[in-house]
Amino acid sequence: MLRAQVCCSRELSFLMEAHDGLSAAIAKRAGFTGLWASGLSIASSLGYRDASEGSWSQLVEVVERIVDSSQLPVLVDGDGGFGNFNNARLLARKLHQRGAAGVALEDSAFPKTNSFVGDRHPLADIDEFSGRLRAVKDTVAEDFVLVARIEALIGGHGMDEAISRAGAYADAGADAILIHSRKSAADEVFAFMRAWQNRLPVVIVPTKYYRTPVSAYRKARFSTVIWANHSMRASVAAMRQVCGRIFAEESPASIEPNIATLDELFELLEYNELAHAEARYLPQPLDPRQ
Amino acid sequence: MLRAQVCCSRELSFLMEAHDGLSAAIAKRAGFTGLWASGLSIASSLGYRDASEGSWSQLVEVVERIVDSSQLPVLVDGDGGFGNFNNARLLARKLHQRGAAGVALEDSAFPKTNSFVGDRHPLADIDEFSGRLRAVKDTVAEDFVLVARIEALIGGHGMDEAISRAGAYADAGADAILIHSRKSAADEVFAFMRAWQNRLPVVIVPTKYYRTPVSAYRKARFSTVIWANHSMRASVAAMRQVCGRIFAEESPASIEPNIATLDELFELLEYNELAHAEARYLPQPLDPRQ
Amino acid sequence: MLRAQVCCSRELSFLMEAHDGLSAAIAKRAGFTGLWASGLSIASSLGYRDASEGSWSQLVEVVERIVDSSQLPVLVDGDGGFGNFNNARLLARKLHQRGAAGVALEDSAFPKTNSFVGDRHPLADIDEFSGRLRAVKDTVAEDFVLVARIEALIGGHGMDEAISRAGAYADAGADAILIHSRKSAADEVFAFMRAWQNRLPVVIVPTKYYRTPVSAYRKARFSTVIWANHSMRASVAAMRQVCGRIFAEESPASIEPNIATLDELFELLEYNELAHAEARYLPQPLDPRQ
Amino acid sequence: MLRAQVCCSRELSFLMEAHDGLSAAIAKRAGFTGLWASGLSIASSLGYRDASEGSWSQLVEVVERIVDSSQLPVLVDGDGGFGNFNNARLLARKLHQRGAAGVALEDSAFPKTNSFVGDRHPLADIDEFSGRLRAVKDTVAEDFVLVARIEALIGGHGMDEAISRAGAYADAGADAILIHSRKSAADEVFAFMRAWQNRLPVVIVPTKYYRTPVSAYRKARFSTVIWANHSMRASVAAMRQVCGRIFAEESPASIEPNIATLDELFELLEYNELAHAEARYLPQPLDPRQ
Repeated sequence: MLRAQVCCSRELSFLMEAHDGLSAAIAKRAGFTGLWASGLSIASSLGYRDASEGSWSQLVEVVERIVDSSQLPVLVDGDGGFGNFNNARLLARKLHQRGAAGVALEDSAFPKTNSFVGDRHPLADIDEFSGRLRAVKDTVAEDFVLVARIEALIGGHGMDEAISRAGAYADAGADAILIHSRKSAADEVFAFMRAWQNRLPVVIVPTKYYRTPVSAYRKARFSTVIWANHSMRASVAAMRQVCGRIFAEESPASIEPNIATLDELFELLEYNELAHAEARYLPQPLDPRQ
Repeated sequence: MLRAQVCCSRELSFLMEAHDGLSAAIAKRAGFTGLWASGLSIASSLGYRDASEGSWSQLVEVVERIVDSSQLPVLVDGDGGFGNFNNARLLARKLHQRGAAGVALEDSAFPKTNSFVGDRHPLADIDEFSGRLRAVKDTVAEDFVLVARIEALIGGHGMDEAISRAGAYADAGADAILIHSRKSAADEVFAFMRAWQNRLPVVIVPTKYYRTPVSAYRKARFSTVIWANHSMRASVAAMRQVCGRIFAEESPASIEPNIATLDELFELLEYNELAHAEARYLPQPLDPRQ
Repeated sequence: MLRAQVCCSRELSFLMEAHDGLSAAIAKRAGFTGLWASGLSIASSLGYRDASEGSWSQLVEVVERIVDSSQLPVLVDGDGGFGNFNNARLLARKLHQRGAAGVALEDSAFPKTNSFVGDRHPLADIDEFSGRLRAVKDTVAEDFVLVARIEALIGGHGMDEAISRAGAYADAGADAILIHSRKSAADEVFAFMRAWQNRLPVVIVPTKYYRTPVSAYRKARFSTVIWANHSMRASVAAMRQVCGRIFAEESPASIEPNIATLDELFELLEYNELAHAEARYLPQPLDPRQ
Repeated sequence: MLRAQVCCSRELSFLMEAHDGLSAAIAKRAGFTGLWASGLSIASSLGYRDASEGSWSQLVEVVERIVDSSQLPVLVDGDGGFGNFNNARLLARKLHQRGAAGVALEDSAFPKTNSFVGDRHPLADIDEFSGRLRAVKDTVAEDFVLVARIEALIGGHGMDEAISRAGAYADAGADAILIHSRKSAADEVFAFMRAWQNRLPVVIVPTKYYRTPVSAYRKARFSTVIWANHSMRASVAAMRQVCGRIFAEESPASIEPNIATLDELFELLEYNELAHAEARYLPQPLDPRQ
């Protein structure tokens, strides 16, 4: 369960990004035991910018596909909750219904701007955002994990602001803190960890500071590492290469050995389950071609 | 326009598979001027099997994202039309509304089985399927392309059946014929082409018989080649590799050079348009951090 | 719970039709303790004909609104399951996820025709339909009610056929039988009841034979009566009258006393809960007009 | 066309509320030539409060059903555009795609509160809201009508504020002004009209001040009157009565004469078109019962 992984374990846990049913199935097959339904990756997959272009109900539908095809605990990137406390609790209720294991809400305004884009990242009022957290906790089931994501470092508001917000969000009922940083070294999140003193479990997203070895996170007693967008970025690179080659060569012959076979795909998505079910539930024709 | 490419051009044209907004944007950037909204790829992306598990309205929503993010002519794999003539014309109307340029309907029963799976591929009654085609032609605008896809060779029903069906579908108003084969050599589609004598333009899907050089299709005067699932299969292979490596190494450091950067992604999805629009439409703060 | 009402009670129970969140809230307020998510009414509300024009996922979305706004047990009219056993079990899984308490599947082909329209009502093959029932039972949770709806009398196939089908569907795991009749007297359903001998609980839909007093159903030991479309038909009559009057009189003044006030509406949809929640979760402004 | 009705006609025009496909079909049959896709009514129909609980994509889906079943020009109540300029232009683009004829955007913050609920109605910044209007005008086709709805009187900000905002919104490209008032007499809107001097056409919503005769609006040269929620309120009253009676009487017999017959419904939703199409497109069986 996600609660165990994120909140209550002494082991560092990992969440792998997924953005649709296919990427979720692949992450599961690779061995991951929890997923991150990334806002950036889902927006990209839909052809949206990560700026609250997709609606909350479209997010819920994607999350449903991720859960259904992986049957793994999924922590959902819920941006700021798509509005005020009322939108946030409605979102949380729907995510829980579709089988998500938790949601991360960030203290940004609506509509949001991706944390890695531009310098304009206004923060939500602490009390107002704490109200969103309290509303979610009062609404959803006990086992649904609520992660409060702090954008103060992204917005350049300083470590004191980050710690102060983390404290307020803990008081509001958050189960864990996600401290976000876009520095290329992990200094900020370590500094946060030292100041925070583990009053709640801490989740990090080493997208920019990916070079830091995981052993350092273990030592610093972080709870969870999110690999936040790597499947999506892998698919972009692969599709670019394949599209470019097929366009230039007017043939897929040269790239055929490098892409998944249909049989691999059918295995991944459990077509054999369907074949077995057909044998079980469909009347069997005498002539198998009919 | 798709009509020009598929139906009225002496040049062989190519359609590249897309299954979401992201793959569509990538195919466009690679130079393709038309897309194939593949049923198999879309189902896979959603975590469904290609067996009519996704609903027609879910297909329409995906097609909308493909069209919106590429602004290219999109030919949609409409399976058999998701029911009878009434479902088929409703589907066509909705696809046209979302900006698709055409639909390919196949003469299979509902629910369908993917053409590459199993040996049970019952064909629709010719008259009943012709009724679906007539209903679509009578419903949608003149410029919406209707491709009749023949599954007779897939089902092992022989070339005479295929030609006979092609004739009936031409009479019913189809703009082009898609002759499907799952042989690993292109013999079947060439044999069809010789027998058919180009009474309507012919579209092919060289997924299994990918080794035949395109020059042979040009010489035989096929109209259109569909690269039907290669972006999806490329993304599967890439995501598998990246998930496997990150899981094993507990780090994305070694795969980072092989995946797209966030800046590439932002460029692909035109984040700069949003930045320009913000400068144009948002009141500008005195303090840019707010 | 619906299971108790439909399957295990000695009391006759009643399900009131709902077709959207509003009609569901109203039925609950009137005292009903269970709802029927009517295929006809939902299709009508969406502006579709009751002929499988809406997709299964559109149905699921409407059911979600019905459940959310009423918090009552909802039995869903699932037509024939929107395809074969695989579509039926997928539908059941999704309905259960959205909080529905059960589904009624009818032994018709896809796409369906409304039982009260025309004379063309082909029945599904008994074995094939039994496979749909078995697949649903094997898929969804124990407490999800599966009702097998028999269209044999609608299609004019006779009582022996109806009884034979009921037996097969009981063997396949149905929790109850819905015997449908479009006669203006209840003779057919009483005859069925006598022949069936209550081997499973029996549900009826007295749309056409509405004059029979409920005491007769109690005496004959039917399990459940569904008032299948009366809210929708009431709203049609009322909207027709109001539209006609406002159009003719160029004023709503004369109909104003006959329609619900906004305050009634706000009370029905619990706007006070939102006001209380705002007081609890929103920071309170010093100036209440801001 | 809506543009003609709202913007360019010397005749007073009327828009009737619709909230789903059914109410839209009824309004059309009554003679109305334009519809108002009411935010309050649509939210109510879905079981949501009118407080931005439904997502923008859910609104778009409902509008699609309204347009499809009526084929009338539909002016959509777009609240404030569901966010900033970027959300507003995305909404407008999607509404236009689904066939809506125009959108009314109000100068409120997101999430919104219904104009008739409470006293907390903060207004959007004039420049920011004008940016939303300009973004919409720059995005959608020329024939798509943009109405700027002014909430200043609702929020108690005074007539000068209202006139000042109307001027700014006219400069930003609005095609018409909707001046909203919740007074029980029409004084406010007449006062606005005198001060505004018809610099753009003016639309009103006489929900609370319904007693004023339409002749007064004609004389004052208003452009359009919206009957904003009367079908929904009629259906609430009718469904309450029918549910109450059936619950109490355990029978629909007494209300049967007061509700629409199934045949009326089938006529309204054009089941005959489907029957004719079946005769035209389906192979005809020898035995009509099959």
